[in-house]
Amino acid sequence: MHIKIVLIGKIKEKIYNTKIQKYLEWLSRDSKFEIIIVKDSNSNKIKDQIGKLKKNNFFCVCLSEHGKNLDSISFSKFIFNNGEKIVFILGGPNGYPENIIKEMDFNLSLSKMTMPHEMAALVLAEQLFRAFSIKKSSKYHRG
Amino acid sequence: MHIKIVLIGKIKEKIYNTKIQKYLEWLSRDSKFEIIIVKDSNSNKIKDQIGKLKKNNFFCVCLSEHGKNLDSISFSKFIFNNGEKIVFILGGPNGYPENIIKEMDFNLSLSKMTMPHEMAALVLAEQLFRAFSIKKSSKYHRG
Repeated sequence: MHIKIVLIGKIKEKIYNTKIQKYLEWLSRDSKFEIIIVKDSNSNKIKDQIGKLKKNNFFCVCLSEHGKNLDSISFSKFIFNNGEKIVFILGGPNGYPENIIKEMDFNLSLSKMTMPHEMAALVLAEQLFRAFSIKKSSKYHRG
Repeated sequence: MHIKIVLIGKIKEKIYNTKIQKYLEWLSRDSKFEIIIVKDSNSNKIKDQIGKLKKNNFFCVCLSEHGKNLDSISFSKFIFNNGEKIVFILGGPNGYPENIIKEMDFNLSLSKMTMPHEMAALVLAEQLFRAFSIKKSSKYHRG
């Protein structure tokens, strides 16, 4: 499996970066994993990046609080039922460039609550780790 | 206003503690704020603590992924529409002692997804800070 996360805007705080890297390190035992950072201000670059991912047959998921709320078990099934290539796109503090959301294959919500960019990235990284744990029936998920 | 958070089980990771303390420090400008930590294993102590809070007229909110999902604006209204004293109780890795949830005034969900205890505490702290920002119409919440 090949998973990418496109972050629109950097993770500035070291606290979040450390923790996110930890989850991704654990995840890389089970899947090819990449983080791509695109500058918040550059909406053409974001569109290009997404165009490239779609061309390469990545299932494109954007995250927004208006997307669909899944529980962790449904999220795990979702990950493993949408092909071998999946990308999660996280909007920056200014959200998404116009018309991007409707080009996505799925619009996912981690919470109905609005979270800071960096916190959403952390929650996503942990949910991905949890999704693999659920798939492998490890003890991590006790839900 | 007087807000308490009861954590069933310690926040072990420094990364989370630092960030949670930061939010609570900011919040303490607007509200009296306390964190109470109760040992996970001690279910009588948890029940006693909650009994005491109810007696002192705290509006008791427990957090679980089966609770009601509110968006950040509704959460802000919720905070300011339920009296001057409110307490949020966060279950530990083993959840809640039997019969505790039905004694609560409200059952809140931060996300349908299952989060680690420490991450839920962080998300809650940020949402409380956001709730006050929304109330004060500060620029922090751009949702």
